Amino acid sequence: MEIKQPTLLLDKQKCRANIERMVQKARKHRVKLIPHFKTHQSHIIGNWFHDMGIREITVSSVKMAEYFADHGWKHITIAFPCNILQIDKINDLANSIDLTLFVNTLTTAKFLANHITSRVKLITEIDTGYHRTGLLAEDTDSIEQLLNFISKSEQLIFTGFYTHSGNTYHSKTRNGIAEIHSTTLFKLNQLRKYFSSLFPNLSLSIGDTPGCTLIDNFTGISSIHPGNFVFYDINQFNIGSCPTNWIAVAVACPVVDKIKERKEIILHGGAVHFSKDFENRSDGSKNYGIPVLLDDNGWSTPYFDNYLYSLSQEHGLLKCTSEFYSRVKIGDIIGILPIHSCLTANLMKGYTTLDGESIDHIEGESE
Amino acid sequence: MEIKQPTLLLDKQKCRANIERMVQKARKHRVKLIPHFKTHQSHIIGNWFHDMGIREITVSSVKMAEYFADHGWKHITIAFPCNILQIDKINDLANSIDLTLFVNTLTTAKFLANHITSRVKLITEIDTGYHRTGLLAEDTDSIEQLLNFISKSEQLIFTGFYTHSGNTYHSKTRNGIAEIHSTTLFKLNQLRKYFSSLFPNLSLSIGDTPGCTLIDNFTGISSIHPGNFVFYDINQFNIGSCPTNWIAVAVACPVVDKIKERKEIILHGGAVHFSKDFENRSDGSKNYGIPVLLDDNGWSTPYFDNYLYSLSQEHGLLKCTSEFYSRVKIGDIIGILPIHSCLTANLMKGYTTLDGESIDHIEGESE
Repeated sequence: MEIKQPTLLLDKQKCRANIERMVQKARKHRVKLIPHFKTHQSHIIGNWFHDMGIREITVSSVKMAEYFADHGWKHITIAFPCNILQIDKINDLANSIDLTLFVNTLTTAKFLANHITSRVKLITEIDTGYHRTGLLAEDTDSIEQLLNFISKSEQLIFTGFYTHSGNTYHSKTRNGIAEIHSTTLFKLNQLRKYFSSLFPNLSLSIGDTPGCTLIDNFTGISSIHPGNFVFYDINQFNIGSCPTNWIAVAVACPVVDKIKERKEIILHGGAVHFSKDFENRSDGSKNYGIPVLLDDNGWSTPYFDNYLYSLSQEHGLLKCTSEFYSRVKIGDIIGILPIHSCLTANLMKGYTTLDGESIDHIEGESE
Repeated sequence: MEIKQPTLLLDKQKCRANIERMVQKARKHRVKLIPHFKTHQSHIIGNWFHDMGIREITVSSVKMAEYFADHGWKHITIAFPCNILQIDKINDLANSIDLTLFVNTLTTAKFLANHITSRVKLITEIDTGYHRTGLLAEDTDSIEQLLNFISKSEQLIFTGFYTHSGNTYHSKTRNGIAEIHSTTLFKLNQLRKYFSSLFPNLSLSIGDTPGCTLIDNFTGISSIHPGNFVFYDINQFNIGSCPTNWIAVAVACPVVDKIKERKEIILHGGAVHFSKDFENRSDGSKNYGIPVLLDDNGWSTPYFDNYLYSLSQEHGLLKCTSEFYSRVKIGDIIGILPIHSCLTANLMKGYTTLDGESIDHIEGESE
């Protein structure tokens, strides 16, 4: 395979192993894995999940739901507060597949009750501490008001609660993640108990990759919806979710310049390839990605003494040790393990496997 | 026009006024405007420049050069260190248009001398203090060695020096920008003098929007290559480059949820729409964008007391005053002025004018 421009490499073996591992973990703990497809956004990678028995998936927009429905998926949860402006598309979807929506407000529930044309399942998001979306677990009055309304509609089927504990991403220790995870489980189980007479079969769902990867306690949980684990990335490695050899994507970047005074390598690989997610280094500088060397079998272990410290639109500036600087030449290709694989995949719009196979991404398709 | 999902609105009148203003400024100062098209990446917006007499353009990748060449542009500078791995595409371009490449190293110059099949113009980047790419202005030995080599090749035509003073982006005062700008002019003019016997006609070029917008001294400069000015953004406003009513793009985002405890509005508008560029606020929080209210004529002045303080892949969390929170309803559309319009346009992959006209972006085209 000859690489001449920024290219998102996918190690299919690592990726399939990541999927297999999560499938096995879910099976072992008797929870249903309803994987989030927002990370890979690819019907081909979707098929690898299908190969391993997955039939229900999670996405984060109507657009993604349409894409995967077009590729044959019949059970889709849109894990994003329902956008009532898209009611026509939602009705089209609900008419053809088993659709689950997130509804956290009476306004949205009332709108749906008046405008939905097929039965849809509804999930309500519960905020157990991340403070992004959802009703506070403690706010049982608002939850009850919402569920009472929903229960009166024939077309709206309330199925349960969902929490994305995104605050695990801010934790840098397994104990910290375990604590957040336990709090989420405790609050969700309390809520289920509280609403058990009204909704005896309500399900509890969680979603974050760090918690789903690291923790073995899923008390009361019906389904898990992690997404990032399909690729992992440097951020997940730093959290402790994965060893570096689980990271299944690397951006291959041409070396276009070398700055001898600063021992820096200039890559064609910038904000339009990686996005701008970074990690703070202990010296106060930013890290936008870690280099690996490419070889016939994929890529090396990461060279952690070197890092992308600055991104322009197309430029990546790699701060190097003398050894790394000396061994890299203009015209070489360097791999970069991304900080955040979801945003990198979204920008790169397609994958190339180590065998040179092209793999579609929704953004690479013409609309 | 009915907006139902995140949509990049373009105020054509403001955009054309921005172009006109820079064209007039260049004319007044007798410098050639060779605008950078990496910001808009649209052949239709390119035509608006053409309407105002522009015939030479700047881009930041071979892919963009191919796109604009396909749309009829005959004089293109690729303002990015030449990627020798793309020699075949470079030869194709050089064969059909007047192509200018950036070459900062002997390695690249030697490769081109051996592999280029048509004449190309070369520019060398000079680092006057930004420390991204280019040879240090003080390193006359390396510059001389490079230029001597180039001058011996029949196919490689050295035309001059280029400096992108990106360090103006870190300055928050007009005086700071003026100082950086003066240093760049001084160093470039010194270099021209130094090399005047070898290259009597060498040109000097600069590129940053803050300097080109704010400063009126272009002593010795032949051409200016700013890009962002076509749209401007909140970052440029904060630098002092533009008033807010020059900002020509806003992302229209559906309101999908409201969090009463935190006075926050949840928008469908996240990292896949805005990228992750932010500004640090004085209270230590991050600002990913400022809201405006949409109306029949476009959008209001910005509501600076409110700001996007957090972005997930699809979610935008807008911190609000009580007044703003109360006036916005679920199902409304809010406009967001982006922090960095280049990266936002790159992600949104297309524009909608206030009249509802769709405008192509290279990323929205199928490949």
